[in-house]
Amino acid sequence: MTATPAPRVTIKDVAARAGVSKGAVSLAFNHKPGLSEATRDRIFLAARELGWSPSLTARTLAGSRVDVVGLAVCRPARVLGLEPWYMEFVSGVESVLAEHSSSLLLRLVRNMDEEVGVQETWWRGRQIGGSILVDFRADDPRAAMTQRLGMPVVAVGHPSLTGGLTSVWTDDATAVTEAVRYLAALGHRRIARVGGAADLGHTAIRTAAFDEAAGALALAGAWQVATDFSGDAGARATRSLLTAAPADRPTAIVYDNDIMAVAGLSVAAEMGLRVPEDVSLLAWDDSQLCRLTHPTLSAMSHDVHGFGAEVARTLFSVITGGEAGSHPVPTPVLTPRGSTAPPKS
Amino acid sequence: MTATPAPRVTIKDVAARAGVSKGAVSLAFNHKPGLSEATRDRIFLAARELGWSPSLTARTLAGSRVDVVGLAVCRPARVLGLEPWYMEFVSGVESVLAEHSSSLLLRLVRNMDEEVGVQETWWRGRQIGGSILVDFRADDPRAAMTQRLGMPVVAVGHPSLTGGLTSVWTDDATAVTEAVRYLAALGHRRIARVGGAADLGHTAIRTAAFDEAAGALALAGAWQVATDFSGDAGARATRSLLTAAPADRPTAIVYDNDIMAVAGLSVAAEMGLRVPEDVSLLAWDDSQLCRLTHPTLSAMSHDVHGFGAEVARTLFSVITGGEAGSHPVPTPVLTPRGSTAPPKS
Repeated sequence: MTATPAPRVTIKDVAARAGVSKGAVSLAFNHKPGLSEATRDRIFLAARELGWSPSLTARTLAGSRVDVVGLAVCRPARVLGLEPWYMEFVSGVESVLAEHSSSLLLRLVRNMDEEVGVQETWWRGRQIGGSILVDFRADDPRAAMTQRLGMPVVAVGHPSLTGGLTSVWTDDATAVTEAVRYLAALGHRRIARVGGAADLGHTAIRTAAFDEAAGALALAGAWQVATDFSGDAGARATRSLLTAAPADRPTAIVYDNDIMAVAGLSVAAEMGLRVPEDVSLLAWDDSQLCRLTHPTLSAMSHDVHGFGAEVARTLFSVITGGEAGSHPVPTPVLTPRGSTAPPKS
Repeated sequence: MTATPAPRVTIKDVAARAGVSKGAVSLAFNHKPGLSEATRDRIFLAARELGWSPSLTARTLAGSRVDVVGLAVCRPARVLGLEPWYMEFVSGVESVLAEHSSSLLLRLVRNMDEEVGVQETWWRGRQIGGSILVDFRADDPRAAMTQRLGMPVVAVGHPSLTGGLTSVWTDDATAVTEAVRYLAALGHRRIARVGGAADLGHTAIRTAAFDEAAGALALAGAWQVATDFSGDAGARATRSLLTAAPADRPTAIVYDNDIMAVAGLSVAAEMGLRVPEDVSLLAWDDSQLCRLTHPTLSAMSHDVHGFGAEVARTLFSVITGGEAGSHPVPTPVLTPRGSTAPPKS
């Protein structure tokens, strides 16, 4: 078969058939004000009759499609629903997308192969103008995928993980070091960290930084436990750390998110330990949860909503060919509240 | 101008050019296994050369497009990121979508007019196969919109609010009544409710049910306060309810979500009031937060993740023309924990 490409119906054809300007067609399909209901109906009728839709031609017309951005997330659905970080991040992304009348195409995937397949289908099917890539792992296939497809992306992760993609990241190593130094400065010599999922690149960065800080400070005890970020896993890890004899257990625990720190606070109460007198707890991310507990939770604070917004702005810049270098967002800073104090003895 | 519709390039043309079956093209674009990398590349090349993409033709081919479902949310981005209900609902929707290799097109809107415009653009632009409509209000324009567009939707809301659309809902009136009766059965005669946004239909249903239950039980005091669902608003409302003289303030408070109940617990501690001895607190939704506080929070419990999943299943049924009548999900039930008890005096 020797098919030749079918001649494309353009926005001009639709405008001519409806007896309006190209701008009016654009207004109608972007639902901007300034057209009568009758005119809008005539434009939509003409588009239907000609088989034209902006999803077919938007990329061709404007050079790139920017009204939909992709995000595939490789975490169990239930965990996603319980992790304040993700929802705040997505809300930040959405806040910038809404300014651009754009939407987020969101998909849960079970593994990296599925994500690569989904991104390829979205991109080849012209469903997205670009994607936000999250949760980088060792040997991540997505830098190669991006090059193969020529797709605009922003990688959320440290450049050591993201294979040369335009990246926006949090400096986790510096923040972990600051957290450990703060607890040591209060006098703590036995410090534990309840960490996130071990296969994630940013978890590995935090784990290495904690080891290094503990070594540099010559701590008497340093523990690290990996979890799945859930409150239940944070509670189990805390219980296991605190069941040792008083002289052998940590006097301070730092958590990789705040839901696990809230769970840790509850475990301390259940075990009859006072916070911060018997054990200091330090949360991470600092969503509003940390201000709602009693005592309030000291935390490594950063603006997760603002992080999501910055990632979305950077992706728009990549899509439209603007200046969009890799850059970090502000490093989390310590916000001391009621859950940290010098150890009793 | 007398344009005639351009002849459509079909999946058959793509298959012929790539030298494969139509099924193979479908496999490639749905990223299903069973094709070699070389075959997939040939198919994608043929599709590119012919200007064909499944987003153009999926609806025509299959009768309906089911790989993307829309959800527009009319709440401030920051509130969305802090409200566990939404993230659990979305995670439930995503869990069913993932089983169908489908994605969620998510958009924040500022008002109902914008939502109507967004839904129309999505539908006319063939970006979605149907939509999930949430947060129904009085005189909601979306039933009329749905009829005008002929778009498959599922409405999340009581049939009294959703104008004849296929609906999935929670029986809020029964649940509020049970909550008030439980607190009254414990001996409480002065009961307050910290409610959600006053302009939402389901808030109005809860408000009316609370009034009716308070009247039927001849309570000595009944208060209702509207909020924006945020923890800060819940804290303010609790503070204002509890600053009255002991004989004039509520001895029990029921909240419209759990983040506000967590905030209420913190306010009670800050004011030197013991929970449940001085004041009983009853949360709503029962995300994992309620089990992480100390004391743990009694709550009206329901499976929000399962609710989202059921809504997605119902929408697939509507899109594919299956049996999909309106139906409620299970009514929230009382889960007593540590934050409710008989009043002291």
